[in-house]
Amino acid sequence: MFVHHVYFWLKNPDSAADKAKLIEGLNTLKGIKQIKMAHIGVPANTNRSVIERGYAVSWLLFFDNQQEQDVYQEHPVHLKFVENYSQLWEKVIVYDSVDA
Amino acid sequence: MFVHHVYFWLKNPDSAADKAKLIEGLNTLKGIKQIKMAHIGVPANTNRSVIERGYAVSWLLFFDNQQEQDVYQEHPVHLKFVENYSQLWEKVIVYDSVDA
Repeated sequence: MFVHHVYFWLKNPDSAADKAKLIEGLNTLKGIKQIKMAHIGVPANTNRSVIERGYAVSWLLFFDNQQEQDVYQEHPVHLKFVENYSQLWEKVIVYDSVDA
Repeated sequence: MFVHHVYFWLKNPDSAADKAKLIEGLNTLKGIKQIKMAHIGVPANTNRSVIERGYAVSWLLFFDNQQEQDVYQEHPVHLKFVENYSQLWEKVIVYDSVDA
């Protein structure tokens, strides 16, 4: 199992329109067949000192293995997403993890 | 869906024994019935500027909703885990997200 978790910070964090647009873009990726499971999230209401709540959108993907994730990274639909939507975000942090 | 993703940084990041002990501790949590899905991970081999690779262990949980996650936080097995294993970690970052 390969877990790819991306957190997006928006250039305009208070823009509901930009957040909706980014989510629209992420939804275009869900058809990529290497993806075994996808979840689009926003920060929950939980609030403790260890909780990072500054991001706008969470994009969580499961792949069977790293090779499948590599195919996703170079997939034309993914490259198109980056081209069309990357102007929305200020920062991304990615955590890739594999079975312990 | 409530996604609870915790990343652990160890006090002794080069200690394989400490990492194994933390993973042993996390495995004790898997029986908590509010957890719908659990994944224990370690950083993948991917390496780009946006990828955070400094953490030692990833602990990813799915719950049906925030209430179930709240029960987990206060569950005796979870409290025991924190008591028994928290001396191993230097830092945790938690990302809680809900359906966008």
